[in-house]
Amino acid sequence: MPLLTRISGPRDLDRLAPEQLTELAGEIRSFLIDAVARTGGHLGPNLGVVELTIALHRVFDSPADSILWDTGHQSYVHKLITGRKDFSALRAKDGLSGYPSRAESEHDVIENSHASTVLGWADGLAKANQLRGRDQHVVAVTGDGALTGGMAWEALNNIAAAKDRPLVIVVNDNERSYSPTIGGLASHLATLRTTDGYERFLARGKQMLNRTPVVGRPLYDTLHGAKKGLKDVIAPQGMFEDLGLKYVGPIDGHDIQALESALQRAKRFGGPVIVHCLTEKGRGYRPAREDEADQFHSVGVIHPDTGLPVSASGADWTSVFGEEILKLGHEREDIVAITAAMLRPVGLHGFAEAFPDRVYDVGIAEQHGAVSAAGLATGGLHPVFAVYATFLNRAFDQLLMDVALHRCGVTFVLDRAGVTGPDGASHHGMWDMSILQCVPGLRLAAPRDADQLRAQLREAVEVKDAPTVVRYSRGKVGAPVPAVGTVGGMDVLRRADADRPDVLLVSIGALAPVCLEAAELLGRQGITTTVVDPRWVKPVDPELPGLAIRHRVVVTVEDNSRAGGVGSAIAQALRDADVDIPLRDFGIPPRFLGHGSRDQVLAEVGLTAPDIARQVTGLVSRLDGRYDEAAAPSRLSTD
Amino acid sequence: MPLLTRISGPRDLDRLAPEQLTELAGEIRSFLIDAVARTGGHLGPNLGVVELTIALHRVFDSPADSILWDTGHQSYVHKLITGRKDFSALRAKDGLSGYPSRAESEHDVIENSHASTVLGWADGLAKANQLRGRDQHVVAVTGDGALTGGMAWEALNNIAAAKDRPLVIVVNDNERSYSPTIGGLASHLATLRTTDGYERFLARGKQMLNRTPVVGRPLYDTLHGAKKGLKDVIAPQGMFEDLGLKYVGPIDGHDIQALESALQRAKRFGGPVIVHCLTEKGRGYRPAREDEADQFHSVGVIHPDTGLPVSASGADWTSVFGEEILKLGHEREDIVAITAAMLRPVGLHGFAEAFPDRVYDVGIAEQHGAVSAAGLATGGLHPVFAVYATFLNRAFDQLLMDVALHRCGVTFVLDRAGVTGPDGASHHGMWDMSILQCVPGLRLAAPRDADQLRAQLREAVEVKDAPTVVRYSRGKVGAPVPAVGTVGGMDVLRRADADRPDVLLVSIGALAPVCLEAAELLGRQGITTTVVDPRWVKPVDPELPGLAIRHRVVVTVEDNSRAGGVGSAIAQALRDADVDIPLRDFGIPPRFLGHGSRDQVLAEVGLTAPDIARQVTGLVSRLDGRYDEAAAPSRLSTD
Repeated sequence: MPLLTRISGPRDLDRLAPEQLTELAGEIRSFLIDAVARTGGHLGPNLGVVELTIALHRVFDSPADSILWDTGHQSYVHKLITGRKDFSALRAKDGLSGYPSRAESEHDVIENSHASTVLGWADGLAKANQLRGRDQHVVAVTGDGALTGGMAWEALNNIAAAKDRPLVIVVNDNERSYSPTIGGLASHLATLRTTDGYERFLARGKQMLNRTPVVGRPLYDTLHGAKKGLKDVIAPQGMFEDLGLKYVGPIDGHDIQALESALQRAKRFGGPVIVHCLTEKGRGYRPAREDEADQFHSVGVIHPDTGLPVSASGADWTSVFGEEILKLGHEREDIVAITAAMLRPVGLHGFAEAFPDRVYDVGIAEQHGAVSAAGLATGGLHPVFAVYATFLNRAFDQLLMDVALHRCGVTFVLDRAGVTGPDGASHHGMWDMSILQCVPGLRLAAPRDADQLRAQLREAVEVKDAPTVVRYSRGKVGAPVPAVGTVGGMDVLRRADADRPDVLLVSIGALAPVCLEAAELLGRQGITTTVVDPRWVKPVDPELPGLAIRHRVVVTVEDNSRAGGVGSAIAQALRDADVDIPLRDFGIPPRFLGHGSRDQVLAEVGLTAPDIARQVTGLVSRLDGRYDEAAAPSRLSTD
Repeated sequence: MPLLTRISGPRDLDRLAPEQLTELAGEIRSFLIDAVARTGGHLGPNLGVVELTIALHRVFDSPADSILWDTGHQSYVHKLITGRKDFSALRAKDGLSGYPSRAESEHDVIENSHASTVLGWADGLAKANQLRGRDQHVVAVTGDGALTGGMAWEALNNIAAAKDRPLVIVVNDNERSYSPTIGGLASHLATLRTTDGYERFLARGKQMLNRTPVVGRPLYDTLHGAKKGLKDVIAPQGMFEDLGLKYVGPIDGHDIQALESALQRAKRFGGPVIVHCLTEKGRGYRPAREDEADQFHSVGVIHPDTGLPVSASGADWTSVFGEEILKLGHEREDIVAITAAMLRPVGLHGFAEAFPDRVYDVGIAEQHGAVSAAGLATGGLHPVFAVYATFLNRAFDQLLMDVALHRCGVTFVLDRAGVTGPDGASHHGMWDMSILQCVPGLRLAAPRDADQLRAQLREAVEVKDAPTVVRYSRGKVGAPVPAVGTVGGMDVLRRADADRPDVLLVSIGALAPVCLEAAELLGRQGITTTVVDPRWVKPVDPELPGLAIRHRVVVTVEDNSRAGGVGSAIAQALRDADVDIPLRDFGIPPRFLGHGSRDQVLAEVGLTAPDIARQVTGLVSRLDGRYDEAAAPSRLSTD
């Protein structure tokens, strides 16, 4: 990699000749395929933006100019160019983040991986530049998929309102976000893309521009004016121009010179302008290009030549859901499925194949997923909206005010709930069991294993007059955890060998094995423990207070933020029943969590059997009056 | 009102001749002005949709066809036509709701008053109709302001994706939602509105249509095709058509015949179509038309002739904020203000007059308000986003993932927090102190009086590395509640006359007088009580556990959902400090609340001094072993 070795910052690109830039692009592709095959990561998106990223860093001067990436998983090339070349621990604990990271580099601004935010950030930064009299540039790179999100629309509407506020919007149009982009916007972009005469004209315009010295805005205006005149005849008007945004494009997103030329023009324009670039996801890597489903959007560890997964796969939570919803689809005609541009990642592709008319991909539009579900339910159907837990935050208002207020029978299936791992702070699904507590009527299930997921999904879709939620973890499902009995609607997972046991351990969801192990460890200290899985964690089972009072202390364990989580809800239910025995609630401390494996992150926050056992031992010892501060700190860390 | 008297359902309209419909419109306007002057309500919007509502109910057959209203405050005429004519207790307890209400009528579908939802509901209902083979119609009435919301965009994109799914979208364009609509979309609508040639052509088209027998889709297509051909020459292309949505308009929204004709065509079209109607807010009522600020969007009790308020006004929370932010604007150049289309209702008009360059009205776009604030803060400014508490739910993800994750110094000012009153379920701001608990780093203040609001706003804008929230009630500020001492950052409002008092009463925000009165009542029972106001309720003051342990029981009182609220957070802080004394938390039960006065609703949920005193007496008596179940029920209602 002779050229890549010479790049330790964006300005090193200035010294390269055009043909060297093309060579560099080739080196970067080889590097990415090799590196990401070893670690897993977002391969396809990054292979698509190699030339675009080079051109951006040639034309703009980061970090004085702000280059902003929507969603952020396509920032690997940007990382390489800004001097981050150790990809050996990509997305692993203490390794490079899979997203921009302010801690890593001054070239990074947005760490959030939730889509469609970049135009809002750009609008804010551009307003700040204007108000503070700074003439630095703001460049926002967004995708065609991200434009389907409502935030993008809100931002475009605001950006268009100020004609004198410079802002360059690069639309990286690969005709698919996670999967093919759907809807009116997609048709419109396709029309813009496929207008041959328009493209031929643009090619002519480019030649003209290359022959003429660039002298700033007048040339741009002339070119733009000419283009506009012609366009009325040969090409459809663009909706961006209807909104009042200047539009440049479409540009071949793998032609560095064409990109530089377009970005230079946009940079000089002095107002908001859209540069529409066409790219290929997975560009230059045959296994990715041949993967019609998602072009290697995100891969695990793979063999670099074949693109085949190295590790063996087993049943994961997602596929258990996928199989069960397919069965339910056959049994009940009224069940329809909704996804927000993640058909395959949430396991709905089987359902979609069997019932193409009964699945709705709404785009990256969780708000619409929820509100249209309210409409579907009111129309007599039972929608199942499968979505990553962290993305449900986008639809909180709609779940509350459209689904719950109107008592609609809608089931939300939250995949990747709790600690997820390599994608870091904005992918951990640690918020749902907190924010959903206040939604009136909502019922929430946290299945502990595959059988429970199947059973609770079935129970959920039976509820006709309220939202139901089924939330489960990322990755492989563990072994079945059998119940040894029931109390009310709760499963008893372990009986304590005592008349009045010391501890009632309430285990939530996939943490059941951790809780059972903690109970074992407590047993070795002579502490007797009942372990119970409430299955439905909201509302709190009415039998729980009666069970609790037969113990000396209650302990709750959940894979969710401690703040306002299930532990707090159970504590409140006990108070309301005048059960004033001590309770301790284990969960995720109130801070953002970094990336690492799920087990590493759980260990970091103390959600392991030994940690729980040690703290509970301290508490019980204190109640016994034989508390040893050094041996067993009982104060939970709240950071 | 000879004609209105004869209308007890939509089909009664069928018997009226065209000139009678105009007469009926006049009667309805008189009725509305008279009725709303007595009760207060959304006068301006309803005066604007009289003819439109009549035409809708003439052309469509509600409730078989679904007529859906965005935001819902413009449904008064719809209520009259569907047989609800007793407006004497509009928005009062047990009276007519100010919004559609499923409990009131089978003609009502959407109760939610949050804007921009209607197109999502319509998409869901249209999908259900299609799937179930029903040929009923779905009509969604939305405003130009509501179209600035991201949900509207997400829905349009989905609606446009299915050309064969009938759905009529009526854009009620009055050039202002709460205030003039701003941004790219507004410019585009203005262009459509003001194209004279286009309007003349449409008039011709209408004459032609009136002369030709209407025979369904072919005529529509012909007309539409002809229009389209001409439009390329005489009118700008519409962005709606770029998205693939058929567009009919603009139509004079006060010409019933023109409206009926357009709606008939749209009804027959067989796919998604937009009918663009131009209306005047406050139409036919001079005081409203002359009110440039908001054309009587929402009024209190007024004199019907003059439109002047009947009740004397006093200082309310909003104006206290408005004055203080203006002062802060003079003191600090880096402070900028953000509003989501509610400049005046949130009290920012003074700031906007003084600093027009430093206020951003983002449209009905709370998501953009929050994410652009993150950009502004990263650019070195301190944004203050003033918004109704219930509408913050729309921006939860952005507050968490854009503002908090990036440690941006942004202040959210939540007006109308807690029980608000006449606007019912979706206006009560009872969610914020629950959902914000899990946001890492966020600091939340609940000022108890005007002085505290001023002081805490100043403290909030000093925080540079985290989101801050200041939340306060609707309506008049009560008398100052002085502190008699401090513990940590907390104000002691009342000292107990005892070495180890019985009760530590933690009062949140505006409920301080209620808590002080409860303490008085407890004193009469011989129960000694300390009352403390933590001021900043998140994070929990580190001195609180130490203070609590000097009492026998802790009681918290908040004007917010009990689920996951401040009481739960305090209970958790006590557990974490191994302070295991009993706690009881008073707040709003986990259900949706109806409309009524603030005091009525507070009484309904038991947030009164006598209720609190009675329950606390029961608890203390129980601890004393002299508990009398009948006299003092200590179990809190959780509904």
